[in-house]
Order: sequence, then C-alpha cells, then structure tokens
Amino acid sequence: MSTEKCFAKGSAAPSSVPNGYIRLYSMRFCPFAQRTRLVLSAKGIKHDTININLKDKPDWFLEKNPLGLVPTLETPAGEVIYESPITCDYLDEVYPEKKLLPSSPFGRAQQKMMLEQFSKITPYFYKIPMGRKNGEDVSGLEAELKEKLSKLNEDLVNKKTKFFGGDSITMIDYMMWPWFERLEVFELKHCLDSTPELKKWTERMLDDMAVKATMHSMENHKAFTKTYGEGKPNYDYGL
Amino acid sequence: MSTEKCFAKGSAAPSSVPNGYIRLYSMRFCPFAQRTRLVLSAKGIKHDTININLKDKPDWFLEKNPLGLVPTLETPAGEVIYESPITCDYLDEVYPEKKLLPSSPFGRAQQKMMLEQFSKITPYFYKIPMGRKNGEDVSGLEAELKEKLSKLNEDLVNKKTKFFGGDSITMIDYMMWPWFERLEVFELKHCLDSTPELKKWTERMLDDMAVKATMHSMENHKAFTKTYGEGKPNYDYGL
Repeated sequence: MSTEKCFAKGSAAPSSVPNGYIRLYSMRFCPFAQRTRLVLSAKGIKHDTININLKDKPDWFLEKNPLGLVPTLETPAGEVIYESPITCDYLDEVYPEKKLLPSSPFGRAQQKMMLEQFSKITPYFYKIPMGRKNGEDVSGLEAELKEKLSKLNEDLVNKKTKFFGGDSITMIDYMMWPWFERLEVFELKHCLDSTPELKKWTERMLDDMAVKATMHSMENHKAFTKTYGEGKPNYDYGL
Repeated sequence: MSTEKCFAKGSAAPSSVPNGYIRLYSMRFCPFAQRTRLVLSAKGIKHDTININLKDKPDWFLEKNPLGLVPTLETPAGEVIYESPITCDYLDEVYPEKKLLPSSPFGRAQQKMMLEQFSKITPYFYKIPMGRKNGEDVSGLEAELKEKLSKLNEDLVNKKTKFFGGDSITMIDYMMWPWFERLEVFELKHCLDSTPELKKWTERMLDDMAVKATMHSMENHKAFTKTYGEGKPNYDYGL
C-alpha cells in the first residue's frame, strides 16, 4: 500500500491481498500489533500493512474480523488470523526461514508459559499511568510491577543467557519487547533500576534489526500517547 | 500410583516419574485439569496421576511448580509444563498417535482463536452461581452467556459439522467440554434450550470414550460443588 495513514469508517476497501504477500491490519502505535510487525520484519516476510482507525473502524474491516482487533493477518486466500500470539505462531509455522520458536515441544511450551506469565505484567503499564492521571497513589501497583520485573531479571540471571530463549533472540523476546520500548512513555523506566540483567536485555534488544525497523521515536510515542489520553488518538501522528 | 486421594502439605513426595510415563498433577473435579485428562485418555498416553489438595498444597509440589497450578505435567527428565492449553498442545506434539490438532497452520490458528473466544465464556459459569448465592439478579449475566452460546451454536450451523473442528472430535472440543459437563451442576442447562446444534454437540460428546473415561457422575459433581461453595472442598469426595 502506498500510505501508512489509517483507514476509517467510510473509506474504500483496499484491493485484495497480492499473491505471495500476507497483509497485516495494524495500528502504528499498538504494542500488540508490534509483536506481529516484529515477526514479519525479523523473518523478512513480504507483506503489506493497512492501518486501521480503531475509534472508527471501516465496515469492510469488521466484515473480515467481527471482533475488530489489530493485529489481524489476511492471506491471499482470504484466511483471517487474529490475537497477537496466534498471528506470530502462524507466521513462524508458515514461513520456515529464521525460525523464532524452539524446535522442541518442551522449548515451545516453555516460551508459552513465559508468555502467559508476561500477560499478567502488561496491565500494569496501563493501570499505573491511568492511576497517576486520576491522582491515585500508585506506589502499591509500582511495587507489584517491580516484583514481577525482578522475576524476569532472576530468570535471565539463572539462565545465564543474553535473551529469554537463549543467546539469540527468539519469539518470547519479541512478544515482550513492545512494552519495554514504551517504559519511558509510561514514566516507568525507574522500575528497571534494580533489575540490571533485564536492563541489559533491553539494551541488547535495541541493537536488533527488527526492533529498529518497527520502533517509534520517543517523541512520537509521547505525542501519540498524549492524544490517546485525551480520548482523541491521532493514529497518523508523525506521518 | 495406587491412590486417587489428594496429597496435602506434609505428605511424603511421590516417587519419581517412571520411564515411559508422564505424570499429571491434577484435582479430580478441576475443569482445567480435565482438559489434560481428556487428551491423555483420547491419545492413550501412559501416565500416572497425583491429585493435589489445592487448599493446602504440598511443599514438594510448589517446588516443582511455584505457581501451584493444576494441571501440571512432569516428564521423567523432570520437565514441568503447566497451563491447560499448553499441556494439551505439548502432549499432542510429543505423542503423534491420534493427532488432535489440525495439521495445517491455519487450522491450528483457527482452533486457538476459538479457544481464545471460549476463554471469555468460562467466567460466566462461576459468576452466575456466585451471584445467585449472593441473592443478586443474574438475568443480565445469563443473557450475556446465552448470547455467547448462540455464537457457538451459529458456528456449528455455519460449518455443518458434528464437532467444532470437523466431523470428528479435535482438540477444541476437548478444551470446551469440561464446562458443558458441569452445566447442570451450575444450574445453567436451560441456557442450551435455544441452541439446538450446540445441544446436539453435547450429546455427541457424551458418546466419546475419553469423555466417558474422565467424567464424574452428576451426584459427585453436585456434592463436590456443595463442599466447594462452603469453603471446604472435599477433593476426595466419592473415593
């Protein structure tokens, strides 16, 4: 597609997915969609991207995915796949180049267990800023988040590896990354002060090509988050 | 193991997992653990079962799985796997006999998307009985549940298949079954009155050998649920 601008209700439906491509329905600042963008980028998968106005979704998008979620993948055959971990597993299974999931069933199970635990961390990245905005005392929530991050730190210490699945990046690293990219936006960067191994992990992640290719500048993140907090998300900020 | 009786804090740890076997840590009435029991049974996997007193967990169990969850699997090599869908996928990957997940990546993605949607239904099976117990008006919750069940019904109508993954039982059927086995216990059987295809599905499921092998009598379910509701679950009821 020639535009990154988001498609809203009333927009003309995009042309069908070209053969040899897969399509990602996304939102430029969505951390869940970034998971899929990371995998598409890391594996070098030919794709096009349609950004969706999540506040005012096109009817043609809701026909493809009645839940209206991003990320959603669509194949040239019209197959539709959503929920970020499911899209990522699908891509890793269909495109054999640069496998991101371990080859052993136990290795895959371990990554899925880690992801399940991580899914209990992501809500804090919303609850804490929201609480602060409402003038609440968030010190308890911050302590809980720090406790959970210290478990991740401990995991790296015990494993003695550079990344969560070994000494190179695997799926689980990409699944967790988007929220760490936004730590400064959420004003939570100090939560890494007592987790040195986890901090080193974030620094290593920043050297990865897929991370570089999918990330936004802090300025853009902050500006988007401001519009989001005001209830008027500017999905096209920076374009 | 020679006993189905649950192991509580202070109990002696069981012997190590015999070679050629896999071990399931379970609770006899737990619907999540039943998912794994269904898969073990359907695939004819050699296993032993250790039932855990979930109110008073043995230290040796918490050492194996600090989260203290059932179902948990343990291999002779000491590998530990938990979270019900992860245990079931693991078993299907490791034991190739009678594959329960589809062979195509899109087929697997479809089952995982269905499971994700189903995970939004299970909370109603607790919220409604709890609300009733507290004398609340649960008609709104019941209406929501019926709406969700009607979507499942519609899915079967559209697919024109006997089960959710085709004309034979696949993983997704086993993932959903335990809550339907308990509909009467939750006094929610009337919710199937307007979903005839879903009702037929429950009848077909009752003919399945693994379903028969893992199910409890309604009397036992009700008796256990009563003790559970009173805050003193009798994990050994009926033994």
